[in-house]
Amino acid sequence: MADNKKLTPQAEDFSAWYNEVVLRAELADHSPVRGSMVIRPWGYGIWENMQRALDTMFKDTGHENAYFPLLIPMSFIEREKEHIEGFAPELAIVTRAGGKELEEPYVIRPTSETIVYSMYAKWVQSYRDLPVLINQWANVVRWEMRTRLFLRTSEFLWQEGHTAHATAEEAEKETELILGLYRTFMDEWMAMPPITGLKSESEKFAGAVRSYSCEALMKDNKALQAGTSHFLGQNFSKQFDLTFQSEEGKEEFAWNTSWGVSTRLIGALIMTHGDDAGVVVPPRLAPTQVVIVPILKGEDLSTVLTKADEVLARLREAGIRAKIDARENLSPGAKYFEWERKGVPFRMEIGPRDIEQGQIALARRITPEGEKRKAFLPEAQVLAEMPDRLETFQTELRDAALARREANTVRGVDSLGELEEAFEGGAGFVYTGWSGDPAVEDTVKERTKATIRALPGEEFRSDTAPAKCVSGEGDSSVEVAWARAY
Amino acid sequence: MADNKKLTPQAEDFSAWYNEVVLRAELADHSPVRGSMVIRPWGYGIWENMQRALDTMFKDTGHENAYFPLLIPMSFIEREKEHIEGFAPELAIVTRAGGKELEEPYVIRPTSETIVYSMYAKWVQSYRDLPVLINQWANVVRWEMRTRLFLRTSEFLWQEGHTAHATAEEAEKETELILGLYRTFMDEWMAMPPITGLKSESEKFAGAVRSYSCEALMKDNKALQAGTSHFLGQNFSKQFDLTFQSEEGKEEFAWNTSWGVSTRLIGALIMTHGDDAGVVVPPRLAPTQVVIVPILKGEDLSTVLTKADEVLARLREAGIRAKIDARENLSPGAKYFEWERKGVPFRMEIGPRDIEQGQIALARRITPEGEKRKAFLPEAQVLAEMPDRLETFQTELRDAALARREANTVRGVDSLGELEEAFEGGAGFVYTGWSGDPAVEDTVKERTKATIRALPGEEFRSDTAPAKCVSGEGDSSVEVAWARAY
Repeated sequence: MADNKKLTPQAEDFSAWYNEVVLRAELADHSPVRGSMVIRPWGYGIWENMQRALDTMFKDTGHENAYFPLLIPMSFIEREKEHIEGFAPELAIVTRAGGKELEEPYVIRPTSETIVYSMYAKWVQSYRDLPVLINQWANVVRWEMRTRLFLRTSEFLWQEGHTAHATAEEAEKETELILGLYRTFMDEWMAMPPITGLKSESEKFAGAVRSYSCEALMKDNKALQAGTSHFLGQNFSKQFDLTFQSEEGKEEFAWNTSWGVSTRLIGALIMTHGDDAGVVVPPRLAPTQVVIVPILKGEDLSTVLTKADEVLARLREAGIRAKIDARENLSPGAKYFEWERKGVPFRMEIGPRDIEQGQIALARRITPEGEKRKAFLPEAQVLAEMPDRLETFQTELRDAALARREANTVRGVDSLGELEEAFEGGAGFVYTGWSGDPAVEDTVKERTKATIRALPGEEFRSDTAPAKCVSGEGDSSVEVAWARAY
Repeated sequence: MADNKKLTPQAEDFSAWYNEVVLRAELADHSPVRGSMVIRPWGYGIWENMQRALDTMFKDTGHENAYFPLLIPMSFIEREKEHIEGFAPELAIVTRAGGKELEEPYVIRPTSETIVYSMYAKWVQSYRDLPVLINQWANVVRWEMRTRLFLRTSEFLWQEGHTAHATAEEAEKETELILGLYRTFMDEWMAMPPITGLKSESEKFAGAVRSYSCEALMKDNKALQAGTSHFLGQNFSKQFDLTFQSEEGKEEFAWNTSWGVSTRLIGALIMTHGDDAGVVVPPRLAPTQVVIVPILKGEDLSTVLTKADEVLARLREAGIRAKIDARENLSPGAKYFEWERKGVPFRMEIGPRDIEQGQIALARRITPEGEKRKAFLPEAQVLAEMPDRLETFQTELRDAALARREANTVRGVDSLGELEEAFEGGAGFVYTGWSGDPAVEDTVKERTKATIRALPGEEFRSDTAPAKCVSGEGDSSVEVAWARAY
């Protein structure tokens, strides 16, 4: 059905814009299950492309996929103290099955460390069995009180990697390797350059020794934690007796890491590139990169459809994901609106007059300032240039996102007043010094709603970082990036 | 660790052989969750290849993927009467979540018809919104009392397609299309030619009008239901108010189909091709098609490893999934055992002497009667021939499975005594006439443990089918294929 109503503008109400665009671009829908969403084909298609890119990266670095049970015995999840404290409030619990009350209830996995490491304990005997480098693509359930499509849902899809190593150094290296892969993926595929770094103690994963994170800046200048990589030390291996015989014949506990990204990334993608007309999907992730709309008027429909088929075939030969929208009973204009809302990078319009003139009308979902959205170009030229045009689109999206992130980053802030001012002025990331005292985090959160998103990695740190803690009390032991966050 | 112990021979105890081979080929493992398995990387790699092949077939025929919630409100699953009767005993139920008792419990999906059609009801208004052709890859839970790895587990992975159409004819056509895709997949990818046909009323899916099935014959001559495609009529659309306005402006109920295959297929693959040395994975589904074992003896290890790398690169260039097994501390012989048990189609051995002679020792996982398992061949020849050799291997596996199925099929049986005799003689499929009376199914089951696997499709029916029902009472209205089944 034609749906030409405008979206709430971002500037008016970003949150309303987000909810509307997710529904009306048919990315996802609310379900009858509290806090659970349905991921519709257009949204799932983006997820499939994300999966493919990430999966290739994981495999190229020696990881394999496996699958572990959905249900976890209650006694397992309770074994690691910080872990259960963190997850207890969000658990969904199976108490009946096969017509009977269960003797021991199961929880639906909120994450799989406990069940995974219990299996590794069975498989690993010697240093020769290490490292174990396994990933799984799965659904998890965390009973969230306040949910939002993609960003925070009771059930979501993700990948979770779980590795076991003979030494702490090797596990640390793995944690950093994955953080790097995530960053590359977000940068090169999502056109969403994040900052990366260590989490503070108060923000780390329940059960980790150290958590690293990718933090991306959304268009409303709130940060979003987009992927995390955890060094778990021996916290889980000690609880699940995951030991191995070392080369020297000694019994030792293995060192673990875990890491994940989820369908939350789709929400991040929407809020990084979307505009008042809808979503903008980067070409490398778009389920359809080019949509062809045949202009069916007058008598000679078959000429137009034949030409559209021909163009489609040429695009597909060039490895481009293209489709024809030949729906009847829907005007070309209504189709334009719909595909713009869905964020297809390019649209081709082909009508009788275009065929006569040997041209195609090529519309670009967004254009740099000053350039026209639509151009009439010779067919041969358009076809020859499409792969490059898609790459250029991708690069421009990424550059724009990076420029926006930098333009909204404030560095060198060295007092609470200035910090407050920066956020009141609409800043994204604000960099300050920090003593390491958790009380400062509480104070800042109370006054600005901002939290430490990361202790930024080297490449993100300021050339000259403040020497004092932002609180005014004590020296700074580390530079931190604050932001209000999803 | 070296694991050279022999498997229990199939002829001695097929069931013991199966359990051992699944564990020792590292396809899957038992988990601490009752009846749930862990799918290990080798097993999951086969599943990934199955997914890729099927997913391409689905997409090429116009289907898209989506994702629906894991949890289903109890009131939804109860709405279709036959459906809940069929699934009630197997449900796992979530009664607590987020620290509270739930007002209405949720069931973990045993299948998703109810939640899916409740969403379609929201999305479909007009005939223009039809057909809806959606598939999902997901996990489901059915609390089974007696479980076996891959064949019957409390949780399993599958795909479930759910479609909605404007007419019964179109839905029927879809049901048959998918049955055909499944059959092609099993035949061409799994090298496991099934018979296909309609299920009898007593064996159909709970909630379907008609169920079609692919039935494959395992090496112990038991049949295995490997995939089903259901015509649901309007049973669900009436319960979930899935209506549309027809072209004539009338309000009508949509017509539905659903269809699925699961990780059970991995069990079927094992029991179709495996032998006393282990699993045999058809090349088109093998995660590794060629394993290269470098023979590392003497001084000059680097020459051998360089050659192995070179061969690996050449194989990969030819699109072959190959890997080098360079593990230290494990003898070549132990590696041979392991890869044979895992069912890798070809093994290449490269040692210093082979390099001198410009040859490779090529071993084939199984060979036709009378051919040698291992041959020393010029390197250039092996590399040039590998793609063809893999195809030949695939074809021979398929032909052998078909020949076995046919050799174990008995046709034209026209009395209960003869039927009993056939099964006592170890028959696989036995074809008889049938009056359509369900009482005959009960009698036969009691006397032979066999059930009607299908009313075979035209291409599987006998040239001259018995005119009388196998019970001796009444004429035959239809030919049926009986078998003992998993």
